[in-house]
Amino acid sequence: MRLSSRVRNINAGGSDGWDVFYRARQLKAAGVPVIELTIGEHDTRTAADILDAMHRSARGGHTGYAEVPGIKGLRDKVAERIRIRSGVETTRDNVLITAGGQAALFAAHLACCDPGDRALFIDPYYVTYPGTIRSGGALPVPVKARPENGFQPLAADIDAVAGGAKSLLINTPNNPAGVIYARETLDNIAAVVKTHDMWLISDEVYDSQIWQGTHLSPRALPGMADRTLAIGSMSKSHAMTGSRLGWIIGPRDAITVLADLATNTNYGVAGFIQDAALYALNQGDAAETAVAAPFRRRRDKALKILSGQTAVKPVHPDGAMYLLLDIRATGLSGDGFANRLLDAHHIAVMPGESFGQAAAGHVRVAMTVADDIFCDALETLVAFARDLARQAAA
Amino acid sequence: MRLSSRVRNINAGGSDGWDVFYRARQLKAAGVPVIELTIGEHDTRTAADILDAMHRSARGGHTGYAEVPGIKGLRDKVAERIRIRSGVETTRDNVLITAGGQAALFAAHLACCDPGDRALFIDPYYVTYPGTIRSGGALPVPVKARPENGFQPLAADIDAVAGGAKSLLINTPNNPAGVIYARETLDNIAAVVKTHDMWLISDEVYDSQIWQGTHLSPRALPGMADRTLAIGSMSKSHAMTGSRLGWIIGPRDAITVLADLATNTNYGVAGFIQDAALYALNQGDAAETAVAAPFRRRRDKALKILSGQTAVKPVHPDGAMYLLLDIRATGLSGDGFANRLLDAHHIAVMPGESFGQAAAGHVRVAMTVADDIFCDALETLVAFARDLARQAAA
Repeated sequence: MRLSSRVRNINAGGSDGWDVFYRARQLKAAGVPVIELTIGEHDTRTAADILDAMHRSARGGHTGYAEVPGIKGLRDKVAERIRIRSGVETTRDNVLITAGGQAALFAAHLACCDPGDRALFIDPYYVTYPGTIRSGGALPVPVKARPENGFQPLAADIDAVAGGAKSLLINTPNNPAGVIYARETLDNIAAVVKTHDMWLISDEVYDSQIWQGTHLSPRALPGMADRTLAIGSMSKSHAMTGSRLGWIIGPRDAITVLADLATNTNYGVAGFIQDAALYALNQGDAAETAVAAPFRRRRDKALKILSGQTAVKPVHPDGAMYLLLDIRATGLSGDGFANRLLDAHHIAVMPGESFGQAAAGHVRVAMTVADDIFCDALETLVAFARDLARQAAA
Repeated sequence: MRLSSRVRNINAGGSDGWDVFYRARQLKAAGVPVIELTIGEHDTRTAADILDAMHRSARGGHTGYAEVPGIKGLRDKVAERIRIRSGVETTRDNVLITAGGQAALFAAHLACCDPGDRALFIDPYYVTYPGTIRSGGALPVPVKARPENGFQPLAADIDAVAGGAKSLLINTPNNPAGVIYARETLDNIAAVVKTHDMWLISDEVYDSQIWQGTHLSPRALPGMADRTLAIGSMSKSHAMTGSRLGWIIGPRDAITVLADLATNTNYGVAGFIQDAALYALNQGDAAETAVAAPFRRRRDKALKILSGQTAVKPVHPDGAMYLLLDIRATGLSGDGFANRLLDAHHIAVMPGESFGQAAAGHVRVAMTVADDIFCDALETLVAFARDLARQAAA
């Protein structure tokens, strides 16, 4: 039986970008001691007090259908967090609770794009972006952010493909590049989005992982709160990846319709998980800083390890839990480098090509293992790259 | 800013069917002691031992990203349950775990229908069905199952609108009608589905609530396992409505693609909830029978209350936690009756019109309050209807 074109082509007939990741998992299952620096998963678990709060809620009887747009207390608390961080007036009516950031990205695209509509996104990108857009029947259109511009997208590149597009998806702090979009970048994006009367879908799930500079939510730019759907999540900020709890912030009318969409697509989110998220947010910023601390520390150590050599050039990591490393001096593609590193040293990193064409010749290193293992692995990677670069130059 | 036509028209410009429900909730919030016989929510909570299993899993560290198609143990266990109940060979590879039955319905339609495709469903229907189909960009086409046929759909009615359709959605045991589709009904449906080379999406979330007769999964009919996506859920069988845990059973190739779709639309389901579901299923059928027992008991009491009068005629309730009552003798629509009953007696039931045109002149009564309150409310409803019927006949 034939399935819809939409799902048959969800990966555009190619790889889903996870090949090295799967191969690493297979090696590990076969007993090889692989060091995985692949996915954005903390090396710590969700804090026990958060899980205890979830259990109190569940045992207290919050096990029935929860309000579909989210429980009022959590919507209020998320609104407060957003208001304080962005300076933009935000209330419960601007907040839809979703079953994770990925579900929020998908719902936002369903709300902005009809089938066949063009939906722009910036390359390099989180692996699921094009498939998320295709799942709703829209047409994903990449816009390259170039290494020579520090992976900050240019308005002219967006403008060149924006005709008839309904939405532009951006991500800052950026996965995989680790860059934070500058005020100027966002001003230019706002201008082009207004010119073409597009929605801006702003993925801000790394907003608690800022190592240098300032994160600016585009909702705070003049006239942008009315045309921005901002995506957030408890996954990265509170090490609650498995809880699947995120949100969409947007204009009140859009949230009302998104709640109708949620009724028809998932009927809301577990109430006891929402209570756990509310408890976690009530612990304040210090809890988020503590969850982010290991990545900040490893990022600083990594910059020291990477200094004084040119075989591996880090894209300056201003935020998020990854290093994007330019390994073009080795003469290899990111894919070639990642596969050879896995074979030679049992270290798994993600090829830049998994994140689009713009990050070709790079690899992404997740800073998600203990400091000593992380530093050893990075030193091995650098030595491996230096040998390759010497051979390539010879 | 303009949202997509898809979401703006999700309720086809009309009501979402929940008006009486919302009005009852408002009255209740204002202090009126409303008896709610509206939604399919048990009057018991999720069992404490299931919630304790969830807590053990979470505290044991199952708080990271779970495998997107579902954890192997749960997929195995669901496959076993389906295999035993349906007699159809079913393995882990035929099972996708979803964030509830509603998410399963939506994903199944995304997998079967491209934007613009016709997707059939039987009227009367669960309120979200047309919106679920519209959310994916497909075109919902109702097929009436008529009261005079005991709400069993006829193949000829399906055949008449099936040209070019990609899927047919059925629901047995049926909400709102309470009927279980007969073997003959399902044989005829299978034939018409094959003739038009359609997928059959079979919503079987009430498969643990069988009061009379036998539930037959259409996957068990000759040649149907390859073209059926069957939907199940822990919500009704284990009073786990708020946990949002369901599944799709289908051909192996379809499940593979549905897992890709899940990666791009929600990135899987909380691992600790999956562990709770696995624990619950491991308790065996007795646990499901115990959860279903109050509805069986109330259904028997209701039939006694409804006997010996003709103002309110029950559609024979063979399964599911509802009574569908024909109140046409009162001269009112289901909507008129439900609103007047709410005003006069503070009893909230759902108008049949909330479930389509076929159930006009009916109301659906959820058997979801304690026996004495339920029986009192039903007696009040019958007396109210008899007065109206006498007036109508006068």
